[in-house]
Amino acid sequence: MALTRIGLAGLAVMGQNLALNIAEKGFPISVYNRTTSKVDETVQRAKLEGNLPLYGFHDPASFVNSIQKPRVVIMLVKAGAPVDQTIATLAAHLEQGDCIVDGGNEWYENTERREKAMEERGLLYLGMGVSGGEEGSLEAYQYIEDILLKVSAQVPDSGPCVTYIGKGGSGNFVKMVHNGIEYGDMQLIAEAYDVLKSVGKLTNGELQQVFAEWNKGELLSFLVEITADIFSIKDDQGEGYLVDKVLDKTGMKGTGKWTVQQAAELSVAAPTIEASLDSRFLSGLKDERVAASKIFQGDYSSGETVDKAQLIEDVRKALYASKICSYAQGMNIIKAKSTEKGWGLNLGELARIWKGGCIIRASFLDRIKKAYDRNGELANLLIDPEFAQEIMDRQAAWRRVVCLAINNGVSTPGMSASLAYFDSYRRDRLPANLVQAQRDYFGAHTYERVDMPGSFHTEWYKIANSKI
Amino acid sequence: MALTRIGLAGLAVMGQNLALNIAEKGFPISVYNRTTSKVDETVQRAKLEGNLPLYGFHDPASFVNSIQKPRVVIMLVKAGAPVDQTIATLAAHLEQGDCIVDGGNEWYENTERREKAMEERGLLYLGMGVSGGEEGSLEAYQYIEDILLKVSAQVPDSGPCVTYIGKGGSGNFVKMVHNGIEYGDMQLIAEAYDVLKSVGKLTNGELQQVFAEWNKGELLSFLVEITADIFSIKDDQGEGYLVDKVLDKTGMKGTGKWTVQQAAELSVAAPTIEASLDSRFLSGLKDERVAASKIFQGDYSSGETVDKAQLIEDVRKALYASKICSYAQGMNIIKAKSTEKGWGLNLGELARIWKGGCIIRASFLDRIKKAYDRNGELANLLIDPEFAQEIMDRQAAWRRVVCLAINNGVSTPGMSASLAYFDSYRRDRLPANLVQAQRDYFGAHTYERVDMPGSFHTEWYKIANSKI
Repeated sequence: MALTRIGLAGLAVMGQNLALNIAEKGFPISVYNRTTSKVDETVQRAKLEGNLPLYGFHDPASFVNSIQKPRVVIMLVKAGAPVDQTIATLAAHLEQGDCIVDGGNEWYENTERREKAMEERGLLYLGMGVSGGEEGSLEAYQYIEDILLKVSAQVPDSGPCVTYIGKGGSGNFVKMVHNGIEYGDMQLIAEAYDVLKSVGKLTNGELQQVFAEWNKGELLSFLVEITADIFSIKDDQGEGYLVDKVLDKTGMKGTGKWTVQQAAELSVAAPTIEASLDSRFLSGLKDERVAASKIFQGDYSSGETVDKAQLIEDVRKALYASKICSYAQGMNIIKAKSTEKGWGLNLGELARIWKGGCIIRASFLDRIKKAYDRNGELANLLIDPEFAQEIMDRQAAWRRVVCLAINNGVSTPGMSASLAYFDSYRRDRLPANLVQAQRDYFGAHTYERVDMPGSFHTEWYKIANSKI
Repeated sequence: MALTRIGLAGLAVMGQNLALNIAEKGFPISVYNRTTSKVDETVQRAKLEGNLPLYGFHDPASFVNSIQKPRVVIMLVKAGAPVDQTIATLAAHLEQGDCIVDGGNEWYENTERREKAMEERGLLYLGMGVSGGEEGSLEAYQYIEDILLKVSAQVPDSGPCVTYIGKGGSGNFVKMVHNGIEYGDMQLIAEAYDVLKSVGKLTNGELQQVFAEWNKGELLSFLVEITADIFSIKDDQGEGYLVDKVLDKTGMKGTGKWTVQQAAELSVAAPTIEASLDSRFLSGLKDERVAASKIFQGDYSSGETVDKAQLIEDVRKALYASKICSYAQGMNIIKAKSTEKGWGLNLGELARIWKGGCIIRASFLDRIKKAYDRNGELANLLIDPEFAQEIMDRQAAWRRVVCLAINNGVSTPGMSASLAYFDSYRRDRLPANLVQAQRDYFGAHTYERVDMPGSFHTEWYKIANSKI
């Protein structure tokens, strides 16, 4: 048998689809999975899909030996310990100059640790975030192909490739923030749905139309598109629409949590992403919520008459403005980390690569790319002239939607956090002077003044109480 | 010279005051600091304050040898590396059965690591959070005295003491969350100030009266009290009030950040504490905010007529209701960690020890203690019958304040995050069903149903697109 072009280890949904797509593009591929039934399943699928050049192996040695040198093996296994196990298994058979690519959602520091360990063994290591899920992986492959071609082209003397890997954790870090932004997008869409449904009393049919319509404009995106699809589906187990039968409990896998923790670590405000994570946590407390709803029962409707067409238009604007804030936060997390680590990441380029294949793909990303093209040092997306104008045009609607929701007992944590972010960011004077005065009062933490340079401390207690 | 009862290392503001207070209570104390001028300064203060039994040492060996066995040394040094350095310095002279107490704001895992290392050397180690700052440390000593008496009484055979230290990180962890709650309290007070000042147009004189008045009721607390004091102080460098000259930039020291990161780690929603941390981050971006205020200039006043007396009353209620949410979050972080670590912490008891000495001391904590006394397994403070009723009575005012702020361009991130937390927690049905449907659509993450048990997956894309 001729040697294959590349190997792939880890044949869950995403791994299988990626392997099949690579084979379909004409690249002979070797596949391996610890649970061997997954190998056979993938081989079977490759046969059925037209005798694709995909070869399955039940043991790691034959798997590795079937790949042409320098070997590249993509891993798509669960982050953490499974990745370490897979690396150990593969590395035992790999040779100098071979390369392992982690395509999973891994904590960036793990990637940096592994890259270092691999380097000591003469192996190359690439942490590479892949987004797309089961439907998107065909497109995601476009990125993998580019990267792999680059890697393989430069592997022999390991020059540029090592430079690339030298920024080892950045791929995983960016993918992590991508997922945090994805949490934000999904939460904001859910809030738009909630306001339209709970206050506007839109039916699923109307919601389907609204989201399909929105998908033709500035909100054009994969998530808005699939939201429209979701509202169209009837329940095949009973009456009505499937979306109404889905339990309101959202799972999660850790990248959103990491994004929030990193934002805090980097001193970057990320309230919209935090609100999205918190909403997932609260969604999980279904039993507590049901119990609380009985304690706090009552009519939360404000009784205001709602103009449906106006509401739809307002919610669209509120969603778009909130989304700008969420992306501003995400981009600033990446920017802060890039500065800290000296990664030199190009934010506009990230917006560009997110335009296709991944979950947050959206026409909106073009605007972000342009904003950074206009000014690579942009402190915040909000102050890009185009985004600033868009927010100005939408803020009245945005405020109406959040207040309407509040007055009807509907929580819009993401939209209101975005609005508070905007209103804090655009204010030259915040009440933080009082907080700092308090800190100086009880802890002698000192304060600065608005009218002269220097650091000051006041004996607030003594002065205030000497007057009495 | 007779041996002293206890030693204290680390003579910054808090260390000096604590040492003097211990001496004042009649316990002979030895003090040490790496920078020896601090030692002399403290000795001088002890002389001036009435020849207190306080003895200064310039070298660690004489310091340690001056303390009666088993020796107890309290450290009050900066968290992290300085603590490790101090331990190394002291441990070189300590003997089997001696005890080091860390009274600083330390990351709980560091305490657990050190406790283990000390145990191997036959030394005892106690991580103990102390709050109070420079004014509060007199009272904070009451707690240290209790704990030290317990520790010293049981040191000889190291039985119960080891059990206590076995829960080594809990003291630091609880102190960390205390600080997170403190961030929340300070931010909510700052927002109340902002709304009253920016929308209600209250003068500093009026603000002083309002906070002094509030301090007689349900909001009675150290932070409300000092806020009233702050508004009373004139600027001694020029015209007007000092609070208006304080720069609106808030510093921070890390415990708020840790609280937010731990909340995420423990899957506990903590939006109010997050909003407080984010507000500190945004306060720091003074230059960016000034620039943004010029881009987004305009009249943000809604033009609504505001009844000042009504507004003050509404803001008081909004502040109190928001505060309940913030404490509910903090207590749930502690509860989740206690469960994870098997610490068996008594939440009501924590509320009790926070009643005096510390920064968040407030009559309100009595109510929290009673809530946990009524039900030690309370899932959330919000559903305690008394708190639930208080929230119900205040929610109309709360909603009015947040909407008024939004309509006047004043950000109330903490109050609106608290309100969204309440409105999410008390809802039996959240729009999380849509988020989970999206996750199943693009990632085959499966979903549960409201009407039957099990885990389901739907081919959303295929069904939605087969209809077209």
